[in-house]
Amino acid sequence: VRIAIPLFDRFTALDAVGPYEVLSRLPGAQICFLAVREAGLQHTENRMLALSAQSRLEDMPDPDVVLVPGGFGTRELVSYEPLLEWLREADRQSILTTSVCTGSLLLGAAGLLEGKRATTHWTMLDELAGYGATPVSERVVRQGKLVTCAGVSAGIDMALGLVAQLHSVKLAQVIQLGIEYDPQPPFNCGSPACAEEELVELVRNRPQQPA
Amino acid sequence: VRIAIPLFDRFTALDAVGPYEVLSRLPGAQICFLAVREAGLQHTENRMLALSAQSRLEDMPDPDVVLVPGGFGTRELVSYEPLLEWLREADRQSILTTSVCTGSLLLGAAGLLEGKRATTHWTMLDELAGYGATPVSERVVRQGKLVTCAGVSAGIDMALGLVAQLHSVKLAQVIQLGIEYDPQPPFNCGSPACAEEELVELVRNRPQQPA
Repeated sequence: VRIAIPLFDRFTALDAVGPYEVLSRLPGAQICFLAVREAGLQHTENRMLALSAQSRLEDMPDPDVVLVPGGFGTRELVSYEPLLEWLREADRQSILTTSVCTGSLLLGAAGLLEGKRATTHWTMLDELAGYGATPVSERVVRQGKLVTCAGVSAGIDMALGLVAQLHSVKLAQVIQLGIEYDPQPPFNCGSPACAEEELVELVRNRPQQPA
Repeated sequence: VRIAIPLFDRFTALDAVGPYEVLSRLPGAQICFLAVREAGLQHTENRMLALSAQSRLEDMPDPDVVLVPGGFGTRELVSYEPLLEWLREADRQSILTTSVCTGSLLLGAAGLLEGKRATTHWTMLDELAGYGATPVSERVVRQGKLVTCAGVSAGIDMALGLVAQLHSVKLAQVIQLGIEYDPQPPFNCGSPACAEEELVELVRNRPQQPA
């Protein structure tokens, strides 16, 4: 299974690395981090972390799985035609086309969400309608081969589901136990549905916060 | 707050990036990935992902927070004296000395777990006793300024707790909502306590599985 994860400057690290940690344990999986612009180090928003992407989009035009992470960097890429064209081409023959967090805005900009149910980081849900999608407040949204998920940490949940679909429930369970994914979040405030209104407003009004 | 995350070849990516994603949202935090051996790209076990660590251990001898990730690469580092010496020195003045997954074996090898309660990836719990620690099957184990946590994904839970301790509960909650950490694991098998025995044996007998 050839899995392509496009990277770009100002991406959100956990969006990419959460699913990587799960999918890399799929036997025979080849995960390739593809530079959207220049090959080399791709930095997160704060520039304190960089992941290496030595290959370019054109090096893998036909992945089996596309996984698009989010981050502030997506804002300027919604009009970057080489990426949008690559996404459209890759989606033509992919088994699964997926995104984490605001990565779905790039799928939307490529026209791949037209008439589809999809999700993204909760602060950006309204943006999806602009791409002809029906925004859905769910952690993981499956619509045919299109799978989108909520913000940042949701990529781990999504990726375990992808392994179940690509291989088997048993392997997904082995991986979940292997990465000891028995989450115990310290607070009950991880989504706007359960967080207090004050907290929701605080996060909504933090535009500097990468999403 | 200066946070040091030592990196080495064959580390587990999510061990480092989960906590990074949380701690980097602490205002004023400076997170530095320190190369344990040679500065530059540090590869995961499968070599499909590399993080950049341009600084070396000696560049930050006195971090406020030490966070040691795990991975197969820890096995050979338990006898790598330059790292063990750095850990001992750093721990002398740190506010918090922490680890994710098998990162605690390195704290143990440095002598920092002597007489302390600590944890690690569930498959490696027995190893801790060899370092004079009392192994504990809990997701996050706090003992004074020493904080160790369970395998791979547990670093996210731990890091949210560290933010609450270093700054405030309110900020930890803002970050939890910001990364939409409202986990919905697809299966109830993320720890040996809830997984079926067959699954536990499968994972225990997969030595090729990075932990």
